[in-house]
Amino acid sequence: MARRRDSNPVRELLRLPVGKPVDLSAYDAAATPGSPPGGKAAGIAATARMGEDLADLQERLWAAATAGDRRRLLLVLQGPDASGKGGTVKHVIGRFNPAGCRIHAFKAPTRQERHHDFLWRVEKALPRPGEIGVFDRSHYEDVLIAKVHSHASDDEIDRRYGRINAFEDRLSDSGVTLVKCFLHLSREEQCRRLLKRLDKPDKHWKFDPGDLDERARWPAYRQAYETAFSRCATSAAPWYLIPADHKWYRDWAVSSLLLEHLRELDPRYPKAGFDVRECRQRLLREG
Amino acid sequence: MARRRDSNPVRELLRLPVGKPVDLSAYDAAATPGSPPGGKAAGIAATARMGEDLADLQERLWAAATAGDRRRLLLVLQGPDASGKGGTVKHVIGRFNPAGCRIHAFKAPTRQERHHDFLWRVEKALPRPGEIGVFDRSHYEDVLIAKVHSHASDDEIDRRYGRINAFEDRLSDSGVTLVKCFLHLSREEQCRRLLKRLDKPDKHWKFDPGDLDERARWPAYRQAYETAFSRCATSAAPWYLIPADHKWYRDWAVSSLLLEHLRELDPRYPKAGFDVRECRQRLLREG
Repeated sequence: MARRRDSNPVRELLRLPVGKPVDLSAYDAAATPGSPPGGKAAGIAATARMGEDLADLQERLWAAATAGDRRRLLLVLQGPDASGKGGTVKHVIGRFNPAGCRIHAFKAPTRQERHHDFLWRVEKALPRPGEIGVFDRSHYEDVLIAKVHSHASDDEIDRRYGRINAFEDRLSDSGVTLVKCFLHLSREEQCRRLLKRLDKPDKHWKFDPGDLDERARWPAYRQAYETAFSRCATSAAPWYLIPADHKWYRDWAVSSLLLEHLRELDPRYPKAGFDVRECRQRLLREG
Repeated sequence: MARRRDSNPVRELLRLPVGKPVDLSAYDAAATPGSPPGGKAAGIAATARMGEDLADLQERLWAAATAGDRRRLLLVLQGPDASGKGGTVKHVIGRFNPAGCRIHAFKAPTRQERHHDFLWRVEKALPRPGEIGVFDRSHYEDVLIAKVHSHASDDEIDRRYGRINAFEDRLSDSGVTLVKCFLHLSREEQCRRLLKRLDKPDKHWKFDPGDLDERARWPAYRQAYETAFSRCATSAAPWYLIPADHKWYRDWAVSSLLLEHLRELDPRYPKAGFDVRECRQRLLREG
């Protein structure tokens, strides 16, 4: 299908280059590209307005699946601690009917998961036809954490980029629209958010002292992200960089991306596979 | 724990008797017991107001689970076609953070599922600690559809009531709060809703001509429900009858029941398992 360039402005704005080196320092985490004039208040209002369209398109996608349409959408969220992956699920995915969402938060692999290939557990968490899938972290951790902590050899990490591309290509062919979002947070904003968590006792459960060790590896993570994006941004499954220092912008940008993708899918309510008039008559006859 | 009778008015109002015969014809499907004065508009407003408390309690339940609390809640929705099981998920469960919900719609068992005991597939769909689970239909279909259509012998159906009670007792002991809701719809309102589905092409996907065959078995289903409720309403896992002819009342009643149960659970944010001051200092030191 031909790309409708002008009707997908946010996609065009936020898409990382395909097959080229990526330099994350070139992107301002506090930027708000493409957002409606009026700043935060206008952005929040625009996001709320998208909610109804998102829910409507989700219902169409779900309805189409009942008639054999295999298409579905998978939102992949990556980003450092406190970049707002959970907040995106709450505020953006919260607009959908929860019955049609399949959300999976990937943690450190369990013993059983480690007995398998790194994509084994990912396959099990995939959305079914008609569903909106969400990965809060994903198979990309296997070339991020795994690389930074040398959980796998350089050769193995190198092979994984290719495996991820082959995997995503297969998903794409089977009707999965991948929307891969990197929540790009500045080191300074992460510090502010972590301090806030420490200041509020009802946020302590979100805090893990290990997050500070990860934070100390910021440059290594940056490099791992850059390599992952340059190796695994494909035309079938590009990466989008979401400046994430402003929560309202993050929600607006992810909502906009989902809306553009769902509109392009343009799912339709299926035609009745039965005789409507006959059913109507039977209902009235039998009372 | 002692029951706080007066603080759970909706529970008391809607709970079916335990261990006694149930006569569904004694319950008006258009009734609105306990709802705030002011009818539909007031009910809708009251339901919306509960949304924030529900989401707050869900976050506490989730947070508590990160520190080892095994408690969780399971909402079981049963009721005839068009009684609003899906609508309840959309409008009531939609108030929660979707990341903490595990929703399963039970369909006719697959070939694989039929190779196992009827509770096998149910075990796999249970909420994990901290989650809000929702069953749209459930193991009760195995004493409802299965009974009406004689998919199992009378002896086997008879055994299943006991198995369900043992299963739910075990769940309750392991920290699962069961909230079992029967959406009580009148035959007349079902007719109106099915006609509406037929009148709107974008609702045809929700309609199955087989629903009319089921509708013709209304008295047999009534009887099967009554037996299930009299056999499987226990003090650990009672059944609630939700008059469901008014959608606004259904949403208000289920929200109220969830709120009462979650308040009784009273989940707490866990205390920090780390040195907050030390982490704070490290963050400020390392910048």
